[in-house]
Amino acid sequence: MKQFLSVNDVADPMELVQKALACKKSPFDDPCGVHKTLGLLFFSPSLRTRMSSQVAAQNLGMNVITMNVQNEGWPLELNENVIMDGAESEHIKEAAKVLSQYCDIIGIRSFAEMVSYEADATDQLIKQFAKYSLNPVVSLESTLLHPLQSLSDLMTIESHKKVRRPKVVMTWAPHPKALPQAVANSFAQWMNRCNVDFTITNPPGLDLPSQFTQKAAVIHDQDEALEEADFVYAKSWSAGSTYGKPMKGFESWMITSKKMDLTNKAYFMHCLPVRRNVVVQDEVLDSPSSLILEQANNRTFAAQAVLKSLI
Amino acid sequence: MKQFLSVNDVADPMELVQKALACKKSPFDDPCGVHKTLGLLFFSPSLRTRMSSQVAAQNLGMNVITMNVQNEGWPLELNENVIMDGAESEHIKEAAKVLSQYCDIIGIRSFAEMVSYEADATDQLIKQFAKYSLNPVVSLESTLLHPLQSLSDLMTIESHKKVRRPKVVMTWAPHPKALPQAVANSFAQWMNRCNVDFTITNPPGLDLPSQFTQKAAVIHDQDEALEEADFVYAKSWSAGSTYGKPMKGFESWMITSKKMDLTNKAYFMHCLPVRRNVVVQDEVLDSPSSLILEQANNRTFAAQAVLKSLI
Amino acid sequence: MKQFLSVNDVADPMELVQKALACKKSPFDDPCGVHKTLGLLFFSPSLRTRMSSQVAAQNLGMNVITMNVQNEGWPLELNENVIMDGAESEHIKEAAKVLSQYCDIIGIRSFAEMVSYEADATDQLIKQFAKYSLNPVVSLESTLLHPLQSLSDLMTIESHKKVRRPKVVMTWAPHPKALPQAVANSFAQWMNRCNVDFTITNPPGLDLPSQFTQKAAVIHDQDEALEEADFVYAKSWSAGSTYGKPMKGFESWMITSKKMDLTNKAYFMHCLPVRRNVVVQDEVLDSPSSLILEQANNRTFAAQAVLKSLI
Repeated sequence: MKQFLSVNDVADPMELVQKALACKKSPFDDPCGVHKTLGLLFFSPSLRTRMSSQVAAQNLGMNVITMNVQNEGWPLELNENVIMDGAESEHIKEAAKVLSQYCDIIGIRSFAEMVSYEADATDQLIKQFAKYSLNPVVSLESTLLHPLQSLSDLMTIESHKKVRRPKVVMTWAPHPKALPQAVANSFAQWMNRCNVDFTITNPPGLDLPSQFTQKAAVIHDQDEALEEADFVYAKSWSAGSTYGKPMKGFESWMITSKKMDLTNKAYFMHCLPVRRNVVVQDEVLDSPSSLILEQANNRTFAAQAVLKSLI
Repeated sequence: MKQFLSVNDVADPMELVQKALACKKSPFDDPCGVHKTLGLLFFSPSLRTRMSSQVAAQNLGMNVITMNVQNEGWPLELNENVIMDGAESEHIKEAAKVLSQYCDIIGIRSFAEMVSYEADATDQLIKQFAKYSLNPVVSLESTLLHPLQSLSDLMTIESHKKVRRPKVVMTWAPHPKALPQAVANSFAQWMNRCNVDFTITNPPGLDLPSQFTQKAAVIHDQDEALEEADFVYAKSWSAGSTYGKPMKGFESWMITSKKMDLTNKAYFMHCLPVRRNVVVQDEVLDSPSSLILEQANNRTFAAQAVLKSLI
Repeated sequence: MKQFLSVNDVADPMELVQKALACKKSPFDDPCGVHKTLGLLFFSPSLRTRMSSQVAAQNLGMNVITMNVQNEGWPLELNENVIMDGAESEHIKEAAKVLSQYCDIIGIRSFAEMVSYEADATDQLIKQFAKYSLNPVVSLESTLLHPLQSLSDLMTIESHKKVRRPKVVMTWAPHPKALPQAVANSFAQWMNRCNVDFTITNPPGLDLPSQFTQKAAVIHDQDEALEEADFVYAKSWSAGSTYGKPMKGFESWMITSKKMDLTNKAYFMHCLPVRRNVVVQDEVLDSPSSLILEQANNRTFAAQAVLKSLI
């Protein structure tokens, strides 16, 4: 593996899942990171990703350097052939090359601006950084994708599936804010590479880009989609002509225990942070079938498997 | 010890002091923290606590992850059964459980809002976090208490006392701002568990809550209180009906060398940061009887003893 | 070496360069920093310095604690005998003593306020900190000087010079903002201690303070200065009666490939971050004679040599 920006960088997703589950079993077995440095660059806030990536690296014996670029650094110029007399004081060309000289692996967290899908869809920051970096780049969530989250999700499904080919339903959920597509796009991409029966359900007009959903069934009737589900993955996202605008009037899409009754005693999944009683009812979140804590915990070992593969 | 939120979590304070003094003597003797991670969550600024806790953990071989939650994370919901459609994007229930999966011990620094004593007195953030955390929580100063500071103070007194039962006087001090009670409440709690003759002196109307001062003598005449003191501990705090409001007209409560003359050649103590020539005169602070640097230095070994007890 | 605030703290600059080049060759050879802590205090943003200093310390086995004093701490009082009833909540006397108890070496990054040269020229923050610190202080760039950058620059020149005594030309460059003199003053100071033919060129009225330039030739005709240069070091700075004000109308001072043709096939140098097509043309920056990445990479080993010398 040369970089980890999406599932497309992974030859065999299930092999990576097994590697991650092995890390979970014996986290300190392989100090392959000694005398190596992981640089973590955050262009937006992060809690789980920040902590789990650090623990993952330290489990391997790596040193970790964390930078909050927004308040500890300065704005970067992303365009070529520019006369840089504005606010940007450094070109990403220099920033990427210089920082990758200091770090053996670089993790980058960017975030959608949520104004125009066309602008966000370029995913320019991480792509440009990876282009100029002299060392491997790992996505800690980009504008469009969140592969470390998806790898953790897949580990979780693999650990709990009761049939060879479980039905996995990703459902859109209400949220007071317009949220990025990264988690949802990435989950779709990974599911499409796995042996699962994958269905997406969302209100009309909120379909995710087909480059990510591909062959997945997209159903606009949530109840129908949930039937016989083994795993229900809830997530809010913004899409289509309302991109960047909060969606009102879709409260009925919240996952309730009544809706979970439509499923095949499905497990509930969410990437966190989650808005209680907006995205999902307390009683679903606090039930034994909720896998949210395990998903979060798996983040460490997903990151550890990726770092191992890159070292 | 299962957590460290106050002296009430400590079976024998003097035993913990001896443990801390032993750490000070040989800081690198016991690498019991190898492959363990300390997470430090700051909800308010910190200098001494931040640095001393990191050094303490590293002395034990622990990894440390520091998070400034206010600018690197997001606001947490503290109440139960809430429809989370406001500013808070994550419930403390998830945050505490998730972060404590990543960290073997979690330190938390919260801070009083200084608007209403009733609101601050709930000390909700650290209590809720400790309730949901899957691993031990250490107070790095909460709204009401600062036990790591008190343990350092007690180490300092123990190292310098000339009689078996010294007289320790904690005196209120002037300050341009209304300050929290955490250091003062906590110092009172610890003194009440020790073999010292403990007196508190403050202007009328500024008595600390009796749940913390308990059996301590509270005297409103500073000169009378200082008589025969072996240790003078100065600290400003806000209390009573003026809670949250700066106190003007109490400049005469500043500790001067003339006031120190009333004592039994007492040592001067303060937790820092200190306002020179407002709380205490330069000549007292810079005199050989000032213990402020030793108090600050002891913070490392107080934290180290607590971490050792929790591992 | 007792501290590293300028070249004046260095007995033999070329010996330090050799030490740094040896660190570059074998970074992990000498774990002399085990059980030692480097504290990095940032009073202004930093990317290269922050990362390279951490890597340097970790190469030696040191622990590193980073503090962004502006958002994680509080303002410090720098003056003596003050009644501290204003915004500053701690005197540098206590801050320096306390923090240096926690850290074996302290690095400090301050920054010019760019309002009055007289005020900036006192370089008060780092000088006061070094005065009160109980342990060695390293400049990570002060108001007036940036010695770690200069040491990296000298390493780079030493690695590429083709004659015993190369001609080194430092040229002023246009920039949309008024910039500090730290890099330029420091480069001049170090060049004056080396066996190079050193020339400075800048528009009239922008001469650097003579205490730093000393015996160096200062030429106001850029083309004349560039003749026969082996190394061209571009940097913008503010000086003289326009101190703190952006300079308009000096676009012709940008380094172009046409100007590089005047030299003796000179290498191009810059400390970064650099404004492309304002300070220097893309084609110069991206040419094989550009040493900017090597300068940045050498920062790690410059810092490592300094830390080794101080331990």
